[in-house]
Order: sequence, then structure tokens, then C-alpha cells
Amino acid sequence: MSDTVTEFKQERETLNALILSRENVNIKRFFGIDSAVYRDGALSARTKELLGLVASIVLRCDDCIAYHAIQCQEIGLTDEEFDEVMSVGLVAGGSITIPHIRRAYRFWRDLKD
Amino acid sequence: MSDTVTEFKQERETLNALILSRENVNIKRFFGIDSAVYRDGALSARTKELLGLVASIVLRCDDCIAYHAIQCQEIGLTDEEFDEVMSVGLVAGGSITIPHIRRAYRFWRDLKD
Amino acid sequence: MSDTVTEFKQERETLNALILSRENVNIKRFFGIDSAVYRDGALSARTKELLGLVASIVLRCDDCIAYHAIQCQEIGLTDEEFDEVMSVGLVAGGSITIPHIRRAYRFWRDLKD
Amino acid sequence: MSDTVTEFKQERETLNALILSRENVNIKRFFGIDSAVYRDGALSARTKELLGLVASIVLRCDDCIAYHAIQCQEIGLTDEEFDEVMSVGLVAGGSITIPHIRRAYRFWRDLKD
Amino acid sequence: MSDTVTEFKQERETLNALILSRENVNIKRFFGIDSAVYRDGALSARTKELLGLVASIVLRCDDCIAYHAIQCQEIGLTDEEFDEVMSVGLVAGGSITIPHIRRAYRFWRDLKD
Amino acid sequence: MSDTVTEFKQERETLNALILSRENVNIKRFFGIDSAVYRDGALSARTKELLGLVASIVLRCDDCIAYHAIQCQEIGLTDEEFDEVMSVGLVAGGSITIPHIRRAYRFWRDLKD
Repeated sequence: MSDTVTEFKQERETLNALILSRENVNIKRFFGIDSAVYRDGALSARTKELLGLVASIVLRCDDCIAYHAIQCQEIGLTDEEFDEVMSVGLVAGGSITIPHIRRAYRFWRDLKD
Repeated sequence: MSDTVTEFKQERETLNALILSRENVNIKRFFGIDSAVYRDGALSARTKELLGLVASIVLRCDDCIAYHAIQCQEIGLTDEEFDEVMSVGLVAGGSITIPHIRRAYRFWRDLKD
Repeated sequence: MSDTVTEFKQERETLNALILSRENVNIKRFFGIDSAVYRDGALSARTKELLGLVASIVLRCDDCIAYHAIQCQEIGLTDEEFDEVMSVGLVAGGSITIPHIRRAYRFWRDLKD
Repeated sequence: MSDTVTEFKQERETLNALILSRENVNIKRFFGIDSAVYRDGALSARTKELLGLVASIVLRCDDCIAYHAIQCQEIGLTDEEFDEVMSVGLVAGGSITIPHIRRAYRFWRDLKD
Repeated sequence: MSDTVTEFKQERETLNALILSRENVNIKRFFGIDSAVYRDGALSARTKELLGLVASIVLRCDDCIAYHAIQCQEIGLTDEEFDEVMSVGLVAGGSITIPHIRRAYRFWRDLKD
Repeated sequence: MSDTVTEFKQERETLNALILSRENVNIKRFFGIDSAVYRDGALSARTKELLGLVASIVLRCDDCIAYHAIQCQEIGLTDEEFDEVMSVGLVAGGSITIPHIRRAYRFWRDLKD
């Protein structure tokens, strides 16, 4: 696993722990739902990760893209499927998403190293 | 089909025709790609419609939601699947999406009448 | 109470009922948190309604503005306090918020009728 | 001038008057700057209206589009120039701008009636 | 004061000076209003900083969050109050704000060092 | 040319090549239109670059700002014209654009070194 990916995971984990150490009940409940909506249900966890990835592209959030890219790699998303999620996000969100799509492709490549 | 749905479809068609009557080559090419990205490929057209629907929720665009809801109904999306797309959009986009989710559910109900 | 306000409240209530009738557990939990974060805590419910109102202005959501304006009227927000929330939202969010601020002032006036 | 355009102008004027009747100094100063930035300077007022129009498209604000469309008509923007502003906004902002571009074209047509 | 905070303050000051050295009258007036709206009035400067902080969360602007966090620390905001502003921003803005909330908590912690 | 500018250009080129190496037809077509809309037509390429720059400001995309700033420098945009594009973006998009405007001015200065 590349340094970029390791660093991303560690920072995310450390800072999530910092937030949750505050024991704010609403924030904790929100984090609970945020995990729950991506689990298998009427739609598969796989499909839901694609939803999370495209939402992250159109909302232009690099860390959210990185997180869902990691999940997508774990569920075995192919490069061609990744391309098509990117293409939907690009067309829906416009050229303003391109810098995020550039970094998404770099992260996706780093994930495979 | 309910009046709301019929009116939406007619206005959309009329105004798309108005835009395309201008014969601007870049706008026409954009409209072409906007259809093309939702076609069957490495991902199914069905999955891509779900991507379009969740992107429309988080970007808070009622007309885009209505359009993708129509497509989703045609491909036989169940109510439970629709709920789960809404729930991902709600959690990703926050309570600010709720007014759009309200209208999405009303339109989804109207689509079935 | 003016017709506009009554209609807004009724539509909101009807459509929230439609959403919740689906019994999707994550959506229901989200609605629960969305009420909970505005309750008295380290910050007063009054201050939190102001937070909700300014967030609605900068995110440009008319229905969210209307909802928080109703709450603000019930807690006795003065016109001068309302003006200052609007001014913070306007400066933070830019002239693109002006159409929403126009409708916010109209709704605030209707609330007092 | 079509009814749509007249109604838009009247509502805008009435509600701006409502806002300014509050005599909030910061809001008034903001409105002052909002007029000033579009005046002739190093860039012409004409070019600045195009900037205002494209900003309104990518930020997806119908009323802002209508306002700048009125200004653009008064300075004699041609249909072909209007098309090109729309095309830049569409590509930068993505398909999510299409409903706003539809209404922009309808308003532009109404302006000429 | 931690290095992160010092660096943030210095860069902000240097670049604001660069902008203002241009002597553009509208930009200078905007900066003036941007300070003025946060001063004591019908609402206290304290309440207004909370408005600025929550607006920065939902609009997902790290530098704006850092700036308002500094102001909030100077006015003696408690950790519990900070948590509640974060929770309102999180619920209003959705999971897409989480990366910004992570960095907000880190900056808040650094501010106290 | 400053290091910042060189690095920006190289990273942009490398990652665009990574994206295009995937040979996804829709992404390639999108990139084609994204170049085409900025070419001379009813509006000059110069005016269109200003449109691209202001859209990048209000959508708060640093890389997009940097790209259009490079184009604007090549077409000989003066400092005073640059200021006025910034001022329109600032007023339309609000104080939330200020961090991006700070970095825009730094990049514009670096471009001239």
C-alpha cells in the first residue's frame, strides 16, 4: 500500500478518534448512521459504495472520494467501472470536478501499488 | 400518469427543444454526452440511474431528481431501493436536502398513480 | 397566520408523514438527530435556531429558511436580530443569497400577520 | 414585455424595498457594492454583466440569471453571445445546471417579446 | 500557540495585505463590511462568531473555520459549545462536512496548546 | 516562472495524461468540449477566459482559478482587470471565497515572477 494511502487512513482514524472522544451524543449517532446507510439492504453494499463515490465527486470532497475509493477497491471495483462512475460525476458536476477527478485517479492508482 | 408528471415531461421537452434549436455545437455535444454516460457499459444503465439520482439529491436539483426518478421507475426500481438511495443522499448531503427529498417522495408517489 | 405560512406548514407536515410512513430506519434516525441538535444544551435552543437560520441562508434553501424563521418567531426573535442574522448570511454567502433573503423577509413579515 | 418579465421585476423591486426599509447599515452597504462592481471600470459594464450571468448559471440561481439576462438584453447581447455564456456555464457547472439553463432560455425568449 | 495556528495567521495576514495593496475600492469596502457584521449589535459579537463558524462548516471552508475558531477561542467558547456548533453544522451539511469537522477539531485542539 | 506555477502545470499535465490514458470515450469527449467552449466565437477567447475565471472563484476551485489565471496572463490581462474579476466573484460568492481570492492573488503574483 502506498504512503499516500497509509497516511490518509492514519490521519482519518486519528481525527475520527479525536471527534468521538468528545462523547457528543448527536455526533456519535450521526457517525453511526453514516456507517449504516452503506450496508447491504435492498441495495447491495457494493452499489451503495458507488453512490457514495459519485456523491463525493459531485460535492467535490477529496477525502470523501479517497474513503469511498478504498471501499470500492476492497469490493473489487474494476478500472472500467471506476471510469464510469467518474464519467457520471464529471458530466453531472461539470469541469469544476476535474481537479478532484485528477486526484481520484491518482489515489486509485496508489491504492493498487 | 399524474398531471404533475405529465407537466414536468412536457416542459422539459419543450425547453430542451428551445435550447437545441439554437444549434450551438458545444451545447449539443454536451447533451449527447449527458445521455451517453447513463447507457449500459461496465456498469448497467440501472446502476447508473441510481448514481444520477443520488447526485441529484446531494446537489439539490428538483428537476434532475424528477428526471432520474422517471428513469428509475421505468427500470423497475422498488420502493425499498428508492428509500435507500434517498437515505444515502440524506446522510451525505445533510438536512438541507430534506425539502428536496420531500418533493422526491411526492413525485415518486405521483409516478405510480 | 397568513395563508403562505399555513400552506408551508401543511405541506411540510404531509410530506414528512409520507417519508416517515416508509419506515426506513436510517431516515427515521436522521430525522431524530435533526430535531435533537436544536434542543437546549451547552448552547441554548434560541442560539441554535439562529445557527439553523444562517446555515439555511448560506446554503440557499427556502424551505429550511421558512422552517427556522417559524422557530425564531416562536422564541421571540426581534426584527433587529433577524436583520443581523440575514446580514451575516449575506456577507458570508454573497449576492447569490439575495433572492433567498428577499423571500426570507417576505416570510418573516407574513409570520407576523 | 412579457408578463413573466414584468412580474419578476415587480416582485424584485417590492422585496428589495422591504429589505432596505429595515435600514440595516451592513445590508445597505452590501447592496451598494453589489451595484458598484458591475459598473464600467478597467472592464466594461458589458463584460461584467457576462461575468454576472455566468456566475449565476454555475451557482444555479434562477432569479440572479433573470436579473443579469435583463441587463444583458439592455446592453444588446446577441443570441449567439448568450448561447456562448450558457455553454461556458454548462460545461463548468455540469448537467445539474441544465434546468436553470432551460429557464434561462425561456426568460431570454420572453424578454424579446 | 502551535505552529499550525501561527502559520495560518501569518499567511492570512500576508495575503490580505497583498489583496488590499491593490487599492480596489469595492474589495476594500467588502472587507470592511465583512468585519462590521460580526460586531456587537442586536446580537452579541459572541453569537455572531458562532454564526460565522457554522456557516463555515456547512460551506466547507477550512480557512474560514480556522479564522472563526480563533475568534471563538478568544471569546471563551467552551469545548461543549464548540461540539454543539459542530453537531448543527454536521447535521445541516451532511457527512460531506466530516473532513472539515475533523480538521476543525484538530485546529481547535492546536489553539489550546 | 515561479516554482509554484511550474509544479502546478506539471501535476496538471501528468494527471490529465493519467485520466486520458484510460481511453474512456465520454471523459475524452468532455475534455474536448471543455477546451472548445473557451475558443473564439461570438465572444472572444479573452472574454471567455474571464468567464472561466469568475466561475472558478464563485465555485471556489483553486486549481481551476490557477488554470484560468495562466490563460489570462497569456492573453495580457492587466492587474486592474484581474482585480475587477476578483471583485465580481467576491460580491457574488461572498466572504467564503476570500481564502480562494487570497491564493488567486498569490498565484497571479507568482505568474509574473
